[in-house]
Amino acid sequence: MTDSLQQRLFEQLNEIVLIDPHTHINPHAPASSSLADILGYHYYTELAHSAGIPREKIEDPTLSPKEKVSVLVEAMSHLDNTVQLSWLFEAARELFEVDIDRLDASNWEALFDAAQAKMNQPDWEDQVLAKSRLEAVFLTNDFDDPLEGFDTSRYVPCLRTDELVFHLAKPAVRQRLAESSGIDVGSIDDITAAISQRFQYFVSRGARACAISLPPWFSPRAVDDAEAHSAWLEVAAVGESAGTEARATLGYWVFWQLAKRCSDFKLPFDLMIGVNRSVYPGGVFQGQDLYDSRVSLIQYQELFNAFADVTFPISVLASVTNQELVSYSWIFPNVVCHGHWWYSNTPSIIQRDLQARLEAVPRNKILGYYSDMYKLEFALPKFAMYKRILAKVLAEQFVITRGWSEARAVEFGVQILRGNVESIFFRN
Amino acid sequence: MTDSLQQRLFEQLNEIVLIDPHTHINPHAPASSSLADILGYHYYTELAHSAGIPREKIEDPTLSPKEKVSVLVEAMSHLDNTVQLSWLFEAARELFEVDIDRLDASNWEALFDAAQAKMNQPDWEDQVLAKSRLEAVFLTNDFDDPLEGFDTSRYVPCLRTDELVFHLAKPAVRQRLAESSGIDVGSIDDITAAISQRFQYFVSRGARACAISLPPWFSPRAVDDAEAHSAWLEVAAVGESAGTEARATLGYWVFWQLAKRCSDFKLPFDLMIGVNRSVYPGGVFQGQDLYDSRVSLIQYQELFNAFADVTFPISVLASVTNQELVSYSWIFPNVVCHGHWWYSNTPSIIQRDLQARLEAVPRNKILGYYSDMYKLEFALPKFAMYKRILAKVLAEQFVITRGWSEARAVEFGVQILRGNVESIFFRN
Amino acid sequence: MTDSLQQRLFEQLNEIVLIDPHTHINPHAPASSSLADILGYHYYTELAHSAGIPREKIEDPTLSPKEKVSVLVEAMSHLDNTVQLSWLFEAARELFEVDIDRLDASNWEALFDAAQAKMNQPDWEDQVLAKSRLEAVFLTNDFDDPLEGFDTSRYVPCLRTDELVFHLAKPAVRQRLAESSGIDVGSIDDITAAISQRFQYFVSRGARACAISLPPWFSPRAVDDAEAHSAWLEVAAVGESAGTEARATLGYWVFWQLAKRCSDFKLPFDLMIGVNRSVYPGGVFQGQDLYDSRVSLIQYQELFNAFADVTFPISVLASVTNQELVSYSWIFPNVVCHGHWWYSNTPSIIQRDLQARLEAVPRNKILGYYSDMYKLEFALPKFAMYKRILAKVLAEQFVITRGWSEARAVEFGVQILRGNVESIFFRN
Repeated sequence: MTDSLQQRLFEQLNEIVLIDPHTHINPHAPASSSLADILGYHYYTELAHSAGIPREKIEDPTLSPKEKVSVLVEAMSHLDNTVQLSWLFEAARELFEVDIDRLDASNWEALFDAAQAKMNQPDWEDQVLAKSRLEAVFLTNDFDDPLEGFDTSRYVPCLRTDELVFHLAKPAVRQRLAESSGIDVGSIDDITAAISQRFQYFVSRGARACAISLPPWFSPRAVDDAEAHSAWLEVAAVGESAGTEARATLGYWVFWQLAKRCSDFKLPFDLMIGVNRSVYPGGVFQGQDLYDSRVSLIQYQELFNAFADVTFPISVLASVTNQELVSYSWIFPNVVCHGHWWYSNTPSIIQRDLQARLEAVPRNKILGYYSDMYKLEFALPKFAMYKRILAKVLAEQFVITRGWSEARAVEFGVQILRGNVESIFFRN
Repeated sequence: MTDSLQQRLFEQLNEIVLIDPHTHINPHAPASSSLADILGYHYYTELAHSAGIPREKIEDPTLSPKEKVSVLVEAMSHLDNTVQLSWLFEAARELFEVDIDRLDASNWEALFDAAQAKMNQPDWEDQVLAKSRLEAVFLTNDFDDPLEGFDTSRYVPCLRTDELVFHLAKPAVRQRLAESSGIDVGSIDDITAAISQRFQYFVSRGARACAISLPPWFSPRAVDDAEAHSAWLEVAAVGESAGTEARATLGYWVFWQLAKRCSDFKLPFDLMIGVNRSVYPGGVFQGQDLYDSRVSLIQYQELFNAFADVTFPISVLASVTNQELVSYSWIFPNVVCHGHWWYSNTPSIIQRDLQARLEAVPRNKILGYYSDMYKLEFALPKFAMYKRILAKVLAEQFVITRGWSEARAVEFGVQILRGNVESIFFRN
Repeated sequence: MTDSLQQRLFEQLNEIVLIDPHTHINPHAPASSSLADILGYHYYTELAHSAGIPREKIEDPTLSPKEKVSVLVEAMSHLDNTVQLSWLFEAARELFEVDIDRLDASNWEALFDAAQAKMNQPDWEDQVLAKSRLEAVFLTNDFDDPLEGFDTSRYVPCLRTDELVFHLAKPAVRQRLAESSGIDVGSIDDITAAISQRFQYFVSRGARACAISLPPWFSPRAVDDAEAHSAWLEVAAVGESAGTEARATLGYWVFWQLAKRCSDFKLPFDLMIGVNRSVYPGGVFQGQDLYDSRVSLIQYQELFNAFADVTFPISVLASVTNQELVSYSWIFPNVVCHGHWWYSNTPSIIQRDLQARLEAVPRNKILGYYSDMYKLEFALPKFAMYKRILAKVLAEQFVITRGWSEARAVEFGVQILRGNVESIFFRN
């Protein structure tokens, strides 16, 4: 009975047309052009590498798309247990109409060709969006992205700010900021002005969020102008040779400026908390980052207090931080739960974290899920995974344990999946 | 079959008359006087605030009880998913005989009036205790509480000591200690004597525990008299302007004195570990505290070794500390598990933490649950929540997986719920 | 249906003959000689102590085996809920043919005698191995173990190195190293040579792994020879009076030498991460160690990068570290998950940790389980516990949720239980 109840809830949730509030889609090439774009997703290359395929072989620049797939397929027998590979199988079934549950020498070429036939259709992008029931997806745009040449109501701009906070010591970053803003960056006042210009530009082109990913040690604080000025002088003088402290101070100051602009421009500020970059420099492209799970939202106490009018949709990389996220969302009006990020985006962890959220956080403060995808084909299987878990939790915790009607459970699920995306990102 | 098994176990556990080993009941006004006392519980005001109601509106001092409820009801549609609100619904059904599962403009006045009719009955306190199957509840008494004017066998005194450890730098606290103990507090010897007097007084009036809540950074150690004396001189001279180190040193010294007195007077020392106070100063009353989950029981190593004859019932604020609590209870004879505290008092977290305790901690060292309530009406729904989860874990882990009889599972549950409260707090 | 599916999977997994990749078996006395060897296991003595039996009584050296059991039995009524005691009941049933589910004054002597009758049989060791379906078990050998007088294909040597890393300041350890290696240990070059000699010796006698347990603070790094030399001079001069820093530096340097030798000799290096020794000095023998769960695999970043050709089977003491273990195994080719260690070896924690591994780590990188036993009789019940949980997770996550056939699920389970032990430890 639970199984069929869960299935009914899933089917109803699966009807809803969604907005994906965080992706890495390139709006100029949103869909895949071959199966190599799918299997080239870092989730597969890094797992294939971990399972034993040398990086040099995976990243050989001379490989054709078909050859690249053939190399990766060698590892797939070691990965068929992973949920990551199950996304591929679901995409194959739902998008390419190929029903497989293993990928090996016997079937990969058939899949490659079937996918190619679909991808070659001129309206493939529209087909994928329609089959995935996606109306819009948020992008991850560099601060100097011109945001031109695409439909910003379908591909919603989002200002990604990691470079401004962590890499302003690089001359190239400062130069790009100067060029994109038209403001010569010679002082902290100039930086303030340039950042404001970028916010103005992004908002004028439909941006709906500012976003940043943050390392575990990050503990932002208000930095006064004198301290910022002094840090800036050091960083401007010696660039990346500047001391760790000066760079961190400048970063905190920039971060605070970003929060101020989010307040001015009424943009939510997505914080993605907990990633260490390049932990494994020998890893494949985008497969080098890991984390130290010893992080706490107490590090953001001053921020949450200082910016009561900025909404902070928060993603945590490690599940151990989820209970803090639940508690902080329960207390701070401006803190909301946001999706299940990266290493926490696997079923048993989603289920655990989701249960804790649904039972204790106000229902208008839970943003259910985002795909984090680089190519459109991944939204369908990733969201399907999430919706199955959501259906399971709604069935068990609400319909069975609390005695809710199915309609009420679905109404709650729809709010989590879609309603809160609208009320939080599109309230203006 | 599991469902009906679980239901049968619940019903048997629900027959037992209990003692609630930790509450904040005011023995002079134990039951609510209107629905505003119920909805004014910080669990509702803080969630309503988090969901969007301004603090000024919630805490407007000019509001009548009925007006206060009407303000809070505005937020309830955002909270009906929370377990906290489910407590209200269960209290409404079981205590006020109003069967609702939402609270909104259409029904709140009817609930208000129904509750009022009950609360106006002269024996309402007795009725609530009887319906809740509660025989006694532990209090949380300030060190200078006269403990007079109530039945201490029903309302069991418990010496709360946060102020002595953390706020002795406040002249008002020292003055209250002097006045209540009759000992002028001019030296560390005086403090020792005054604390002893307070223990003596509390024990003479039936106190059954000493209790304290502790921040994550707290790492108690034996402080010798010379060091304590020096810290005391600084604190006595400049009060709250004293340095962090002097205040912490004095706090550790006082804490050690408390442990010594627990040894002398054979009182269990309840440690509630992990809360940061006033993390969100803009929050509603009692809705400002949060935590840093990076805490370890290793911080209490010296304490547990030094006081082998003191029992430490330990509550942890964050679920991540639960495994340490299980392991330390498994090794240290004087460490026992105590309830599911505050942010860890939600169903999915209770279930996880409880499973880990029941499978690895000696059964005579698990204190199942306390309500932490401020008004008597909350014991029934909170304990019911716990007993349902306990029944589920007993059904799945013991009856089904281990092949225990139902009678044996119930016997175990009764020990957790009641037997250990007696053997640990009433052994003398 | 789930229940019977799970049972079928269990029965198939239970057919497989296994190799136990980590134990503390004494190959000269692998099986128990009386029930006192079973109940004398630290899991029982420490729980009995925790439940209230004084250490002096448990460890009274004048007790006969039967008297020792009679003392421990006094505590068993407090422990019958624990999974640890369930191992004893399963061993009693499967190995001694005594069907009990409590141990008390009424039945312990019958069990004692039944066990004795079995243990007195000359082929008892073989019987236990056969009933447990064990083909070989890994040992934990001191670096100066002569490794003589036993069948190293049944009892596979494993070089345990805690003493070299943490206790080289003890003259006795240095002397044993000198004597066993035949190399006078007067310089860091001598230590390098002596360690190499020990690796050579162990490998020549069939060693299949190097292993070490590590405290939470351990954060290994490459130490250059000058720094190591300087630390060595201090340690050699004053032994255990050497400063914490010199000892840690020397320890890091030795640890790095061990990793180099693992590379040279193609031995996996088992890291067992997170234990604090002697947290409770008043505890019973082997019942004094606990932990600080605030540890991160980021502490091993430099190591994993430096030794790409060494496989690190990693055990974590606290479940909170399991997600990091999953993520690091997903990214680093040389990191693999290894069993469920000590305080994390209880059912609800195994289930949670196992789910996270099976859904996200390449299947060739998961070493399912080891018993950690001191006497052969514990392999059967401990592995049975694990196999039941594995069957449950395979049933729910793979057969039901993913639609796998039962045969495919069993094939996966067999790889986890046995295949990976062969491919990781016996690849040369």
